Amino acid sequence: MNHYTFMNGGVTAPQGFTANGVCAGVKAATAAAITKAAKANESAVIPNGKRDLALITCDRVCSAAAIFTKNLVKSDTIYVTRKHLQNGRAQAVIVNSGNANACNPDGYEKAEAMAKLAADALNISADDVIVASTGVIGQPLPLAPIESGVAALKDILSKEGGTNAAEAIMTTDTVKKEWAVQTVIDGKTVTIGGIAKGSGMIHINMGTTLSFVTTDAAISSDMLREALLEAADVSYNMVSVDGDTSTNDTLAILASGYAGNAQITEKNADYALFLEALTAAFKAVAKKLAADGEGATKLLIGKVSGAKDEQAAKTIAKSVICSSLVKAAMFGADANCGRILCAVGYSGAEVDVSKIDVAYQSAAGEILVCQNGCGLAFDEEKAEKILLEKEITILITLGDGSGQAEAYGCDLTYDYVKINGDYRT
Amino acid sequence: MNHYTFMNGGVTAPQGFTANGVCAGVKAATAAAITKAAKANESAVIPNGKRDLALITCDRVCSAAAIFTKNLVKSDTIYVTRKHLQNGRAQAVIVNSGNANACNPDGYEKAEAMAKLAADALNISADDVIVASTGVIGQPLPLAPIESGVAALKDILSKEGGTNAAEAIMTTDTVKKEWAVQTVIDGKTVTIGGIAKGSGMIHINMGTTLSFVTTDAAISSDMLREALLEAADVSYNMVSVDGDTSTNDTLAILASGYAGNAQITEKNADYALFLEALTAAFKAVAKKLAADGEGATKLLIGKVSGAKDEQAAKTIAKSVICSSLVKAAMFGADANCGRILCAVGYSGAEVDVSKIDVAYQSAAGEILVCQNGCGLAFDEEKAEKILLEKEITILITLGDGSGQAEAYGCDLTYDYVKINGDYRT
Repeated sequence: MNHYTFMNGGVTAPQGFTANGVCAGVKAATAAAITKAAKANESAVIPNGKRDLALITCDRVCSAAAIFTKNLVKSDTIYVTRKHLQNGRAQAVIVNSGNANACNPDGYEKAEAMAKLAADALNISADDVIVASTGVIGQPLPLAPIESGVAALKDILSKEGGTNAAEAIMTTDTVKKEWAVQTVIDGKTVTIGGIAKGSGMIHINMGTTLSFVTTDAAISSDMLREALLEAADVSYNMVSVDGDTSTNDTLAILASGYAGNAQITEKNADYALFLEALTAAFKAVAKKLAADGEGATKLLIGKVSGAKDEQAAKTIAKSVICSSLVKAAMFGADANCGRILCAVGYSGAEVDVSKIDVAYQSAAGEILVCQNGCGLAFDEEKAEKILLEKEITILITLGDGSGQAEAYGCDLTYDYVKINGDYRT
Repeated sequence: MNHYTFMNGGVTAPQGFTANGVCAGVKAATAAAITKAAKANESAVIPNGKRDLALITCDRVCSAAAIFTKNLVKSDTIYVTRKHLQNGRAQAVIVNSGNANACNPDGYEKAEAMAKLAADALNISADDVIVASTGVIGQPLPLAPIESGVAALKDILSKEGGTNAAEAIMTTDTVKKEWAVQTVIDGKTVTIGGIAKGSGMIHINMGTTLSFVTTDAAISSDMLREALLEAADVSYNMVSVDGDTSTNDTLAILASGYAGNAQITEKNADYALFLEALTAAFKAVAKKLAADGEGATKLLIGKVSGAKDEQAAKTIAKSVICSSLVKAAMFGADANCGRILCAVGYSGAEVDVSKIDVAYQSAAGEILVCQNGCGLAFDEEKAEKILLEKEITILITLGDGSGQAEAYGCDLTYDYVKINGDYRT
């Protein structure tokens, strides 16, 4: 039985939080700066229409935590956020989606300046601001649009603004991702809400570019961090779109405590309830991120059971949904079992090849295409019907133990190439 | 100074070897068998026009060795070939490109039967035959077309037939790959020749589906194996098209000894000369494999210097040329340095991020786009001109030590998706 319920809303669903997002024109300003630097040609900076600056805040200081990309090349926003979270508290998040502020000589100062702009507007300490960025790498972050954007945002922060914030963190995403979930802890209704962005450059290991989570639960920053790690491990860490890991990945959470439950400070039953709801939400987001992968037409779920252990199951599930050949075959609705077996075989996990079964499953049915490591003759028409659905589960059943895992990916399409062949222009 | 010279020819260039390739219709027969099994509908088997069966042989027993895919899921042809090479000798190679003979319950018997068909036709021992296959996985190998194909091949084995053999091992390759190189060892002219196939499913770790090498050098099977491993380490093991590792990768070599040099049985100066020529040839093949990657329009060379050590340089070079985002950007001639930095950062190698320089180089010039880990403003027009060439070198200069490496890849294009969206039909 589930102990949580999904509901409408996003980062402003929990008590205490307001937010909004505006079009500040960060991307246009970056592009103009590039042109200027390269050609000494002054261009007018015009906001490009899409919202690209979000501000999320709470009316009190929250306990907070965040986890980040493992890429050695990191946006300076990450170093700044990590420093600001050393005391386990935060009150606001400022984030732009026009420029990654990564690989720039002045990145650290700019990230601090972004935090200060938000802090001054909200009349809070800059140390209590979480900063994040996403967009083009290696080009100076223009602060002017952020300054004017923050000035505009300060006056429109509201409960309703949460959905604009979700929109403002999108880059190549085609749909905005926001969610809210409720559970009961210590007799009190606890709400958790979040927004996420991510379409390309999504890979195993914090496989999301940016995600911000709010809750009114009372919970310590240490337990928030633990919960993020545990929930991400079976969700964000099991998503891959293209095998690339971003420089900017940030998953941050703020807890206002307004729900009034006894503060969670250890891994007790209350923590388990909080984690259960958070994990369910993160898994739902993981599927949304994969389904909205750049150019994707299909969500692929790699579902492994019977592996030697959970680690082996994860390794195999990830290997299958990461395979370019599997992804292209799913785009073409081609029930090729060889590609699945091949990806299982090179995953690095220990497997008894003679005990591998493979089946495809979707709303149109299920078909077994491989048994005991050998390809089966099967009804090609039925297989094609199954693979023409929007959500395909690749079931891999092993005979090695009781390890289980799910990984989330998408098909590889012409549009992925198109989107990424000319990203900057 | 190089101690070798490239020349025309392939597997029949060295003394003692003849070969040929025919259209046996293995793929058509496999397809007909699928249709039959799935729908009980008898279809006529018609050879599909392309050569798909090759036979290479020597007029005397050779010393021989082979190295294979590290995929746990292996074609049974690999187990048979490994067994046949236990005594370090072989006299012929039989290979088909219509069916991988992998993941089939009767794969081992069929692979042995293939060897026996070749052996009987050549009047040699089946234990002296190397067997290989490539093509669709998980479908029974039809022996009838191989039997009639071998009967046809036996009468047309010749020096001129080598190029037909190169053609017969192609699958989605657009150009056949054959090469020959000469060197002088112990005062004698030694020739080494080879053919290779590989277009998709090419990845680091014996990144070639099939490659067969012949030589008239006198060299022990142990030294042949060492030379294969050493030469592959900087060539086949540094190529990636799509990150997928095949079930059938086989790199085999036969040495007739006709050159008359004192047999190489240890890693002496003669071995070094042999290895130098072999390595040069393998590197040339690696570039050809990458340039002919499925759907590729460009060869990408990732060239790393200044890494902590050679291993770190290899890891970084491979990470860069394997990145889907880098590959798509190169297709679009987009001089995005962020994607390169990103791929360096997640490679897993230890790197001082503040000392990374990145430049693009081609026949049209060279342009520095990143210095000391920070993006530079650069001339976009010049950069585009450089990236519109057919061979692009991505120069990554680190400040961590003296490790160097090169890796070979290709761009990611619409056609890759097209080719792999519907491979079987």
